[in-house]
Amino acid sequence: MDDKVILTIGRQFGSGGREIGQKLAKALDIAYYDKELMALAAKESGLSEEFFKKADERASSGLSYAFSMGYSYMGMFPTYADVLSNDRLFLYQSDAIRNLAEKGSCIIVGRCADYILRDDPACLSFFIHNKKENRIQRIIESEGVTVEQAEELMTKTDKSRAAYYNYYTNKEWGVASSYNFSIDVSVLGVDETVAFIKSFVEKKLSQRPPHFG
Amino acid sequence: MDDKVILTIGRQFGSGGREIGQKLAKALDIAYYDKELMALAAKESGLSEEFFKKADERASSGLSYAFSMGYSYMGMFPTYADVLSNDRLFLYQSDAIRNLAEKGSCIIVGRCADYILRDDPACLSFFIHNKKENRIQRIIESEGVTVEQAEELMTKTDKSRAAYYNYYTNKEWGVASSYNFSIDVSVLGVDETVAFIKSFVEKKLSQRPPHFG
Repeated sequence: MDDKVILTIGRQFGSGGREIGQKLAKALDIAYYDKELMALAAKESGLSEEFFKKADERASSGLSYAFSMGYSYMGMFPTYADVLSNDRLFLYQSDAIRNLAEKGSCIIVGRCADYILRDDPACLSFFIHNKKENRIQRIIESEGVTVEQAEELMTKTDKSRAAYYNYYTNKEWGVASSYNFSIDVSVLGVDETVAFIKSFVEKKLSQRPPHFG
Repeated sequence: MDDKVILTIGRQFGSGGREIGQKLAKALDIAYYDKELMALAAKESGLSEEFFKKADERASSGLSYAFSMGYSYMGMFPTYADVLSNDRLFLYQSDAIRNLAEKGSCIIVGRCADYILRDDPACLSFFIHNKKENRIQRIIESEGVTVEQAEELMTKTDKSRAAYYNYYTNKEWGVASSYNFSIDVSVLGVDETVAFIKSFVEKKLSQRPPHFG
């Protein structure tokens, strides 16, 4: 790609958002970041990756899940240190995301990247969703679980992602106006959805400087 | 258009959703319905249009606004007759929408058409949104109001639309997963957004029977 473009992808669990992100990165020949962000953030912060992984696991499942369920549900309350370390993790992660976005075109999945890069004119934000039955099927296949487990995992993971996003941004996870473009994968299927998002990115690039409607 | 397609459009107030709907209908050479639905519903129900218009105004501003604000805020409570007449209006309107959808391809703006036609395989649902500053500018121009008035009108009308939609459907207004496709008009501008949505519709039609992702 000649012009720099940063694509951020928010996604429902089991929607196919990760697969779409990877295929889109390949189609546009740009970098792709998802879990890799943790290692990068650790490296840049100078902290041990082990410490980081532990904190990450708590941020992405423990703490944010606790937010979504209410701490009392888990019979515990967040300590000052809990919140501090998760907030610190978020700051390191934000730095890593900003550094990547400065380097060149890329796709970043999750981790509030759309909010962190909100002032970057090269940034376009997407939200990927899918029909419930398709999501359940995808989760059964990827996680090797039963229908009931898939449904529970789907609900809990979305709650956790929403809690994390709503806590660290001034926007609402999954709400259309939080993103430039949201799409239901079930309409066109994964590959055609990738091609369609690609055409959106190309249209936008061909228009710069942007025309406002 | 050879294949039948029913496009429903939900939209933030001032987003340009109406303009996009009209231009899209022209580009696809299909019918367009917005406020016209009221007259049709009146005609089909055999009730006087005058009675209908009165009820419509209450449904689209009075009652639903009251829902969004809470009746107590307005110092009044809905009577059984209020709710009855609004529910009846919704049923007549639903019949009118279903009749239109049966007749042939069309675009229907607002009025929970996506929910009413949820089992129609020819139906695709869209949600149109826009940057706040663009919306304010559009409202100032279309309504001839000040910035402050535009901002108030924007917030109140969206609240009213959300309350109406959330009351009559099992979905949430403005939430990405309630629609097949949501787009921020400010990225491409009105005309290119119309062309882009048209390409989505054409892709979908070329794929039938649908491929699920």
